[in-house]
Amino acid sequence: MAFVDRILHCNSFTRGHVVPLLAGARRVGWLRHDNAKALQQHADVFHVGHDSVLLLAEGDTDAVSRAVDGVVDALVAERRVPKVRNETFDVAPRWGERPIFRLDRGAVPFFGVRAYGVHLNGYRYDGCNYSLWIGQRAKNKQVAPGKLDNVVAGGIGNGYGAAATLAKEAEEEAAIDGQLIGRAVACGALTYCMETRNGVRDDVMFVYDLEMPPDFTPCNRDGEIAGFELMPLAEVLERIRTTTDFKFNVNLVILDFAVRHGILRPDDPEYLDVANGLHRPLD
Amino acid sequence: MAFVDRILHCNSFTRGHVVPLLAGARRVGWLRHDNAKALQQHADVFHVGHDSVLLLAEGDTDAVSRAVDGVVDALVAERRVPKVRNETFDVAPRWGERPIFRLDRGAVPFFGVRAYGVHLNGYRYDGCNYSLWIGQRAKNKQVAPGKLDNVVAGGIGNGYGAAATLAKEAEEEAAIDGQLIGRAVACGALTYCMETRNGVRDDVMFVYDLEMPPDFTPCNRDGEIAGFELMPLAEVLERIRTTTDFKFNVNLVILDFAVRHGILRPDDPEYLDVANGLHRPLD
Repeated sequence: MAFVDRILHCNSFTRGHVVPLLAGARRVGWLRHDNAKALQQHADVFHVGHDSVLLLAEGDTDAVSRAVDGVVDALVAERRVPKVRNETFDVAPRWGERPIFRLDRGAVPFFGVRAYGVHLNGYRYDGCNYSLWIGQRAKNKQVAPGKLDNVVAGGIGNGYGAAATLAKEAEEEAAIDGQLIGRAVACGALTYCMETRNGVRDDVMFVYDLEMPPDFTPCNRDGEIAGFELMPLAEVLERIRTTTDFKFNVNLVILDFAVRHGILRPDDPEYLDVANGLHRPLD
Repeated sequence: MAFVDRILHCNSFTRGHVVPLLAGARRVGWLRHDNAKALQQHADVFHVGHDSVLLLAEGDTDAVSRAVDGVVDALVAERRVPKVRNETFDVAPRWGERPIFRLDRGAVPFFGVRAYGVHLNGYRYDGCNYSLWIGQRAKNKQVAPGKLDNVVAGGIGNGYGAAATLAKEAEEEAAIDGQLIGRAVACGALTYCMETRNGVRDDVMFVYDLEMPPDFTPCNRDGEIAGFELMPLAEVLERIRTTTDFKFNVNLVILDFAVRHGILRPDDPEYLDVANGLHRPLD
């Protein structure tokens, strides 16, 4: 088992399994063939063609969102969408563009719309070795229960930017206050595209590093993390290489940390596939 | 003009303009159609088919290199390759694999083989702002004469690894000794693929950061750099955005520096296209 296997696991997406979800001429999602078919009975909101599904609902963001919400309720009743999360993500063709509609987080994989999140590497460095604060996800989490996680991570809900999401999640998930999170450094964006039970996970992770003060211990406030542990990076990397203890996408965030901080190095034959593989091209 | 234009400029490669150069079943280069045709008269070394060119020369690395060298000499005589550089690059299907042959650097674009180099961001940080040591390339350089450059950069010649190349070039180009370059941190790999006058430039740049001591001024020893200047990063980024003063691929290295150090940030609408665009997928 090698580091690149963790990357391949997150990039299981196969173009032949899906059709594009279009808003006008722009793609905003990927629909698995069975998911596209399930939209045929909502012909007022979606036109299901052979090669694509077209969003028909018109109007401003509120109006389109209401129309799609009605479809999502039906999909939940049919158990095609597990449940409504009561947290909505903006849906736009590209990052930074005006959203066409808002979509409940629970329905994001069904429609295969691109989702954006923030991940924080909370690290310590003694001048020689790095350690990372690692959280263990609560056993009742819907996604990856009990798996190991970054000290802070969360999806960017509608109306929030990346920095605001980071500050909010840092406070809720790890009791990192505004002053401390203000020292976090934006370090890049990682991308992957994965087939999941419910559809497609087309994810962008905005990555931040924060050097944690020696006297600070993260403390969870929202019940999503069972506990935190400070782990030597070398041990973390060995667990990433040899186990699936870490949440699927957190492996990528930590591999990127190791690439950016010279822990993995170019003369390692696997280096280039890791460093390059963390960045799936955006279409 | 925007940052992404600098990235697009380095990614002018169009698949329809080339055919693959194959060694057995593996691709090792891209040949422009006119370049492929020029190999027809070397039928003992290359078989030129309709959709690909196959390397016929067999034997160990030395034997294949000798056969290809003969062809390169003819291509120089025909002015299809500008000149022999007397510096050879390893040619292999993937980084870390055994080379199939060595190719003179001057012929690398003609055959469109992937080339690997190192680039060093020599920076200073005052706790608030970054500055970069920037070199100006000598006016007699074959590629990008007079353009602005990283403090150290160089191609990885055959038999050298990335770290060894960095140390060698640091000494020759900027009088950075072994002790100082030993503090450089490997930070990732950038990739692009560009059509050039002579063929295809399929490049991997291994990127390093080095915090430069306040009392150190780089000094060129090999005549390739006309002079160095310490520039505020904000000014460097503005010149990258609004001018073509920097060598085409150096723009990418400095944009990556700005992404990794939180100078460019996710809430900028252009951020994702920059952060992602620096990493062209390897095939």
